[in-house]
Amino acid sequence: MDLNALTKLHYGVYILSSAADGKMSGQTTNSVMQVTSDPVQIAACVSKQNFTYELINKSGKFSISAISQEAPFKFIGNFGFKSGRNINKFENIEHYISNGIPVVTQHATAVFELELVQKIDLGTHEIFIGKVTEMKITDNSQTTMTYEHYHKVKGGLTPKNAPTFGK
Amino acid sequence: MDLNALTKLHYGVYILSSAADGKMSGQTTNSVMQVTSDPVQIAACVSKQNFTYELINKSGKFSISAISQEAPFKFIGNFGFKSGRNINKFENIEHYISNGIPVVTQHATAVFELELVQKIDLGTHEIFIGKVTEMKITDNSQTTMTYEHYHKVKGGLTPKNAPTFGK
Repeated sequence: MDLNALTKLHYGVYILSSAADGKMSGQTTNSVMQVTSDPVQIAACVSKQNFTYELINKSGKFSISAISQEAPFKFIGNFGFKSGRNINKFENIEHYISNGIPVVTQHATAVFELELVQKIDLGTHEIFIGKVTEMKITDNSQTTMTYEHYHKVKGGLTPKNAPTFGK
Repeated sequence: MDLNALTKLHYGVYILSSAADGKMSGQTTNSVMQVTSDPVQIAACVSKQNFTYELINKSGKFSISAISQEAPFKFIGNFGFKSGRNINKFENIEHYISNGIPVVTQHATAVFELELVQKIDLGTHEIFIGKVTEMKITDNSQTTMTYEHYHKVKGGLTPKNAPTFGK
């Protein structure tokens, strides 16, 4: 098996956010895909080690922001490699709160608000199936960053809890 | 809700194949993502209307081929908009058979052989979680086609059974 084959799969770059018990957090992720159109449902795969995982399980609500290709690495880094347990990741980041959940609008091409409807246990990770309750384009002049662009152009690394950490 | 927001999610273009009872089929899809790295598992979302859905359920095995950006529209069309119930989609298509399952190598950047380990019912669609039993890069000189490229450059349409059919 050649783990490099996994680099031939395409993804976008997203910020997945949630909140519960007066705490909120967000994390960068690439593991997002639409899974049904009637109703519109989106699947997101999250590490059980992540604080956002705990918050989604508690509140049953989350948001996804698709990140523009123009977003600087520092902005993306703000949501990765650090835990929302210890810092407020939303300080100095443009966002709004809907149904108690933060939705990042800064450097976002589109935002989605979701209600958790199903969870699939995969051992180290869990897939959350969310029903979209609101979605809108926030910047139609930009394309969403691809995971390939994040790696090649931005020089981004993959944190050890990512579903795509293979090597 | 603006359904156009869904066009801001990124995907690759893949051929998902399976076989059972002496019949084989394959379909184009964009709904594929890695979900764990230990073991390496990949999720694929499939319409219950599709013949490949039936075959994966029967055999418990499937393959995924990541399709090169250079693949002509005619090649992709061979695996979409027609049902494997009526025609042999693999005639004149380069492929090999592994554990009884066809694996398309033509215009492929990488191929994955998978064993079905979990199914998630989503109403119109089902997510198949597959454990990767073999994977390799088949063409490292090409990048995998993005779903955006398929729509914008190739002028591709989305069939009505796709998880991403929203409008």
